[in-house]
Amino acid sequence: MTPTETGVHGYSKQKDQHLKRLRRIEGQVRGLQRMVEEDVYCIDILTQVSASTKALQSFALQLLEEHLRHCVAAAAVEGGEEIDAKVEEATAAIARLLRT
Amino acid sequence: MTPTETGVHGYSKQKDQHLKRLRRIEGQVRGLQRMVEEDVYCIDILTQVSASTKALQSFALQLLEEHLRHCVAAAAVEGGEEIDAKVEEATAAIARLLRT
Amino acid sequence: MTPTETGVHGYSKQKDQHLKRLRRIEGQVRGLQRMVEEDVYCIDILTQVSASTKALQSFALQLLEEHLRHCVAAAAVEGGEEIDAKVEEATAAIARLLRT
Amino acid sequence: MTPTETGVHGYSKQKDQHLKRLRRIEGQVRGLQRMVEEDVYCIDILTQVSASTKALQSFALQLLEEHLRHCVAAAAVEGGEEIDAKVEEATAAIARLLRT
Repeated sequence: MTPTETGVHGYSKQKDQHLKRLRRIEGQVRGLQRMVEEDVYCIDILTQVSASTKALQSFALQLLEEHLRHCVAAAAVEGGEEIDAKVEEATAAIARLLRT
Repeated sequence: MTPTETGVHGYSKQKDQHLKRLRRIEGQVRGLQRMVEEDVYCIDILTQVSASTKALQSFALQLLEEHLRHCVAAAAVEGGEEIDAKVEEATAAIARLLRT
Repeated sequence: MTPTETGVHGYSKQKDQHLKRLRRIEGQVRGLQRMVEEDVYCIDILTQVSASTKALQSFALQLLEEHLRHCVAAAAVEGGEEIDAKVEEATAAIARLLRT
Repeated sequence: MTPTETGVHGYSKQKDQHLKRLRRIEGQVRGLQRMVEEDVYCIDILTQVSASTKALQSFALQLLEEHLRHCVAAAAVEGGEEIDAKVEEATAAIARLLRT
């Protein structure tokens, strides 16, 4: 069975690290709320936004790497049209990340 | 007194909308955690990351616009070297946003 | 007269450096063409694309800084509605840069 | 033989379209030079920079898609450590694109 059918994905092995990372980003966004509530200077808030966006992006890159290594590679080994669909899908996801 | 001295910034008038927006982004990041816990397909998680990054960016653009309209404009009216420092500072913040 | 009416803009003083920079970027894009013609490895071409995009962005940031310091600051000093139009226009330009 | 050994890459079949695209981008960068020489308004130049950056990015995405479909897929079929190296390399290239 290919990984996707068992509900197990490339990222499943690193689940705990991903969750830890996302909880930290959640904390950063709550930190932004406190900064706004406490009338912190605009530029300092913008600096914190860049830090949170960067953290989200490195989470996305990590997930993408695992997806390429597992789901896309499995589709290549399987052969047939599956690889085209997987590559198209991954490229569209990368395009969305580039536009933000 | 210029706005910055009174602790009131360009964004102060829209404080509630900003806080509402940030709480929604916080909810999106918690949503990412649920997706990872529930073994959702990688590409769907990446799509949600793009949505959260986009929301953070539009919050940053809103803040930047208010900063230019209030803090930077006030420094220009004040004259002297203050405008150079404010412009340099704003450009550096924009550069950080571009790099993420 | 405000700078914009005399056709002189914030970047006019640095015109030669900007033109030099743009000619270098033009050379980088021609370099990309050679790499494709010579069947260079995809990843090496992508690395060169990032270098060219980065060069375009630092040109844009330089122009933006000069625009804030001259055109936007002049509008603030002039007072009235001009500053709102200038800030909106600059924020829209920054948003376009962020989306690429 | 894997595609990379024969000097033929994923993008080789679309070489003409890629070269046509790059020549258009080269023309856009020369257009930026003319705008600076003719003292065109800063915001209009920034709009043209965004168009050129976007064109470079869609060239990069096209190349990346072909690289995933050919070079990375071939490495997956070949098995062994090659796939890890290819995935790492592709993810690093995507990270560089994200940072610009």
